[in-house]
Amino acid sequence: MMGWVAIAGLGPGDERLVTPEVSAALSDATDIVGYIPYVRRVPARPGLTRHESDNRVELDRARHALELAASGRRVIVVSSGDPGVFAMASAVFEAIEAGPQHWRELDIRVLPGVTAMLAAAARAGAPLGHDFCAINLSDNLKPWPVIARRLRLAAEADFAMALYNPRSKSRPDGFGHALEVLRESCEAERVLIFARAVSTPDERLKVVRLADARPEMADMRTVVLVGSSATRVIERSGGPFVYTPRSASA
Amino acid sequence: MMGWVAIAGLGPGDERLVTPEVSAALSDATDIVGYIPYVRRVPARPGLTRHESDNRVELDRARHALELAASGRRVIVVSSGDPGVFAMASAVFEAIEAGPQHWRELDIRVLPGVTAMLAAAARAGAPLGHDFCAINLSDNLKPWPVIARRLRLAAEADFAMALYNPRSKSRPDGFGHALEVLRESCEAERVLIFARAVSTPDERLKVVRLADARPEMADMRTVVLVGSSATRVIERSGGPFVYTPRSASA
Repeated sequence: MMGWVAIAGLGPGDERLVTPEVSAALSDATDIVGYIPYVRRVPARPGLTRHESDNRVELDRARHALELAASGRRVIVVSSGDPGVFAMASAVFEAIEAGPQHWRELDIRVLPGVTAMLAAAARAGAPLGHDFCAINLSDNLKPWPVIARRLRLAAEADFAMALYNPRSKSRPDGFGHALEVLRESCEAERVLIFARAVSTPDERLKVVRLADARPEMADMRTVVLVGSSATRVIERSGGPFVYTPRSASA
Repeated sequence: MMGWVAIAGLGPGDERLVTPEVSAALSDATDIVGYIPYVRRVPARPGLTRHESDNRVELDRARHALELAASGRRVIVVSSGDPGVFAMASAVFEAIEAGPQHWRELDIRVLPGVTAMLAAAARAGAPLGHDFCAINLSDNLKPWPVIARRLRLAAEADFAMALYNPRSKSRPDGFGHALEVLRESCEAERVLIFARAVSTPDERLKVVRLADARPEMADMRTVVLVGSSATRVIERSGGPFVYTPRSASA
């Protein structure tokens, strides 16, 4: 029996945003490996072993999945959103590169999903409708000066931005610094969207000007979208639409 | 009868990458509006009118969809990939902002999808596994100096990059210029992935060093991924894995 590893994206939360490709792979798996809340999104069934692990043990989890596959198991490593965006796919390939040669020849696939910024953007309108960037604000794996520098250059390039992992209990202050950098680089009227837990029952969307943005508007379930200088707000009775036009001038 | 507009992403091509949310909306629609090849991805059925239009008439198409919805029809505007990434969502909101006031109060939703860069990245490994940007290389709607400037700043920020619409028959030369800008800004060993028609029968993936990249490796069905300075290639017998590590140093 040949084992395999599929690194699969479960999307932002709503089961209607899980691709049929991922659903089929989940049905065929013997083992699910991942961070506790994501593993729990996969219903228990006979023949399926669910391996839950805590946050910040990504490399251990990746190695565990590869060992299981090498022993013949059919393993899904679950991420929320898309597995290739600030999620488990990179960790699995880091483990492969540092691991035994035979891991390279395993059947390894990445199954894409709807990443948080695209679900958030869809809910708000089309704020990422022109050139944009995605920056992970967690300084667990990179020093703060790198983050600050990227924010400044992204503002200079006039990208719209999606800011992942803006704030957590263990990193209460970084997002405040990020807002300071944005305030030095962008006008006060710049549009920000705080999109929390999009597509779940806890969904909350808040559209504010940069001048009015506060660190406590974000938590670990929030993705923050920052408009470009061209981003527009269309006021309406059901809450505004936010979009970035397709065209840009020099 | 209340009409609505849903701007829906069909994903990169494989039907198993169409979300159940989009499939359900397609079943409930009376009208499909979009670019010819995308409309043809939706099977004909009684009660469904398919309105095909050519490329580069995005605003006309958007207005048509809004007029249909205002008259009580249930309209899907189809895009490939995700509708919010270089696709129809921005065009619809541009039309709403410039249109009659009552369009703002229509039931308008954006249904996210798997965008081309995420499908391409999944196939290659995890090249977008760290901070990255997405740039549309078409100069139909923005002047070339803006594109060149963004490429330079993205390289300076050490983002991985996804380059959409690198080359078409009407724009045969822009991508060559883009490669020149990248060569001025990045080392010769920088990893590029030419991902063509991912998830379709025409899929083709090519991993090359920047020094070996040639304009003719891209066409209008290609998305080009550019690694950051940290992107790694894992050689193996089935074709290499490419990934960008999660960590960065100052």
